[in-house]
Amino acid sequence: MTKSISDVSGDEVVAGGGLLSRRLLLKSSLIGTGAVAAGLTASTGALAEADIPDWVTVSGERARGYGLPAESETDVQRAIIEPWQEVAAAFSLSGTPHHRLRGTITPSGLHFEVHHGGRPDVDPARHRLMLHGLVERPLKFDLESLERYPMVTATHFLECAGNSLFNAIMPEPMQAGCDMLHGLLSNSEWTGVPLSVLMDEAGVKPEGLWVVAAGSDGPALARSIPIEKIMNDGILALYQNGERIRPEQGYPMRLLLPGFEGNMNVKWLTSLWVTDAPAHTKHESGEYTEILADGSSVKFTFALGVKSFITHPSATMTMNGPGFYEISGLAWSGAGRVERVEVSADGGQSWAEAALDGPINPRALTRFRLPWRWDGSPLVLMSRATDETGAVQPARSDWKAKYDPSNFLHYNAIQPWQITAEGAVQNVYM
Amino acid sequence: MTKSISDVSGDEVVAGGGLLSRRLLLKSSLIGTGAVAAGLTASTGALAEADIPDWVTVSGERARGYGLPAESETDVQRAIIEPWQEVAAAFSLSGTPHHRLRGTITPSGLHFEVHHGGRPDVDPARHRLMLHGLVERPLKFDLESLERYPMVTATHFLECAGNSLFNAIMPEPMQAGCDMLHGLLSNSEWTGVPLSVLMDEAGVKPEGLWVVAAGSDGPALARSIPIEKIMNDGILALYQNGERIRPEQGYPMRLLLPGFEGNMNVKWLTSLWVTDAPAHTKHESGEYTEILADGSSVKFTFALGVKSFITHPSATMTMNGPGFYEISGLAWSGAGRVERVEVSADGGQSWAEAALDGPINPRALTRFRLPWRWDGSPLVLMSRATDETGAVQPARSDWKAKYDPSNFLHYNAIQPWQITAEGAVQNVYM
Repeated sequence: MTKSISDVSGDEVVAGGGLLSRRLLLKSSLIGTGAVAAGLTASTGALAEADIPDWVTVSGERARGYGLPAESETDVQRAIIEPWQEVAAAFSLSGTPHHRLRGTITPSGLHFEVHHGGRPDVDPARHRLMLHGLVERPLKFDLESLERYPMVTATHFLECAGNSLFNAIMPEPMQAGCDMLHGLLSNSEWTGVPLSVLMDEAGVKPEGLWVVAAGSDGPALARSIPIEKIMNDGILALYQNGERIRPEQGYPMRLLLPGFEGNMNVKWLTSLWVTDAPAHTKHESGEYTEILADGSSVKFTFALGVKSFITHPSATMTMNGPGFYEISGLAWSGAGRVERVEVSADGGQSWAEAALDGPINPRALTRFRLPWRWDGSPLVLMSRATDETGAVQPARSDWKAKYDPSNFLHYNAIQPWQITAEGAVQNVYM
Repeated sequence: MTKSISDVSGDEVVAGGGLLSRRLLLKSSLIGTGAVAAGLTASTGALAEADIPDWVTVSGERARGYGLPAESETDVQRAIIEPWQEVAAAFSLSGTPHHRLRGTITPSGLHFEVHHGGRPDVDPARHRLMLHGLVERPLKFDLESLERYPMVTATHFLECAGNSLFNAIMPEPMQAGCDMLHGLLSNSEWTGVPLSVLMDEAGVKPEGLWVVAAGSDGPALARSIPIEKIMNDGILALYQNGERIRPEQGYPMRLLLPGFEGNMNVKWLTSLWVTDAPAHTKHESGEYTEILADGSSVKFTFALGVKSFITHPSATMTMNGPGFYEISGLAWSGAGRVERVEVSADGGQSWAEAALDGPINPRALTRFRLPWRWDGSPLVLMSRATDETGAVQPARSDWKAKYDPSNFLHYNAIQPWQITAEGAVQNVYM
């Protein structure tokens, strides 16, 4: 009744390098993983006294008020990323260790950080949000009053415009894990007040076309947002994965603009100023502008492009011998839902469609999976995402051709991982 | 263009006590909350130097490896529940503070706990899962080998069979918050290996009809599960909200049986023993059996009933004066999706249908919301959930009539909250 992976017929191999049909995931009887688990003989099945682990023989710890990860997991940390130290000492970044995580939600303790002036220690009782400028009734909100407003809950990714910057600008591929290479990306369930409710209470004047959002951090990071985005799906986020937003993510409140580049989702939000034109703040004209190949610059790039990468296996990992594996990774798009993810195990010569874990939420991380039998030969794995608008993740060379060589913003090219005959997994450019 | 809540016409009031149509949530221009926010005059709009908070004037903290909640939120803790101390000193329980949370995901640090012998300190490198009994090939799994298997990700609630026990058995309603009253309930994104994959690899014999699952805690909590549930949607859960399962939730692996009562989702799972009959373990015959009104007993109650309660406002809270509020709460069912939640603000004389936040996942917490204008009069709020099988949450008297007076398991009756003229929110029976 059970077939091991060695019984899989030629029909079930769907692309080069040993990729198997995603439909096998629905037929568990076809994907017995053979030699992975150890056989249990009658003698190993009976527990000898020496086999009884010590934790069974003692009383466990009692219930506690707030839980933490297991002691054995304390090496699962955000990667501190410091490439910016020469540019600006105030920058402080950390990346989510996606190669240590599964699922789609990012634990709040491991959500990436990009701070332009550090993480301020905001007193929630004294924090205020002002809504002013081109409105009929300027308003001031404290945290307590916001608790009475209608709220929405939605799962969305945040990605820094500079995520994957090392792949964008380093002449040779950096050998590092997904935390350093793609870690400025996280996914949370956010809950807060729709900004349209607050805007309608203030009464936006017809000439109010932009909203300049500013944070309560030292540099008062400020960005100009089109009023359409604010009214369409902008959220004043107060909760992250059920509890109050973490200090690193803007406690006690932040702007949440689903799909828009990270820094526009202003943290520690203290001011929404309705204007008739963008403010051209330092942060938008000086830091988040990209230069194109022809020398012209793009000052506002709002939605992030379609993108994906394989988390298992990924660079810095070592394969555990030939045989069955599940290839697993993350895909997302600032434009909407992920429509399709294809995987190649022969450096892009052939592709197979991966299974997507549902529900597939718009502008949220989506987990893809594909069964794979590795025969131990060297090869290159890659994933390529397509979103519901039809946009497809580009090759690195196509992405580079669009921009000035100095640009590192909005890098969304395909990530190839080389598997060596020794089982090392390495970052490569293709 | 903007209407304040005082402009809402009679047509938009849909039930007694000031309940407004859920459709208002889609029309932000109709739910301006009027007097909640403070008006901002020209003078208050301009920041005086004294208004600049000190956290803006100093450098913030740099990025760190693992984040924690804000210092100001350290009072958001699980409630330590100790009603069992007289019965069994080894029992240790804590409840999720749902009245302090929003959204649907429970932060892992606040997931409820029920430990029968405390939380063991399991060494993941030495932990093994044995799959044995009526199988062709007994197998033993370590954590590393399981990483190669196909996985699934799904969001599901867990609820202790004894959740809401105080409402079930106390003659007068206990005045406590949602943490004490309904806190043995949480909701996580779980990722792990489908049990059907492991069972097919072992090859279940035709006479294998039950699986006895045992934990690696001191009392070796063990429960008998029908093989159909294991094969249908059972998961060997390895990850919780993206990261490794927390110690309190069964690190490094637990059984996850969507919709089944909490203790069957065996934590620190070390043995799956395929049998031809249930084992009638102490934990199933002695602890989780309920006695009916006619004196007969029900030994196995698998799926939890349809249930809901309002989290905002809820007992121990105080209203912040008359005016607009959003009523918000949680609904769930062990049988599938929540189909509908109705809310009453006049003690059950009239009901209005609440809005449900999507996506509505099966056997997962679902957030419901309804706009409400409180005129300051005393009244009773309640919610009543219906699931996709048509099951409806009962009144307390109907629930009590089914069982022996001593039974406190599987309480799923409607929760009424009394609002007094002074704005106190109290637990009442109706």
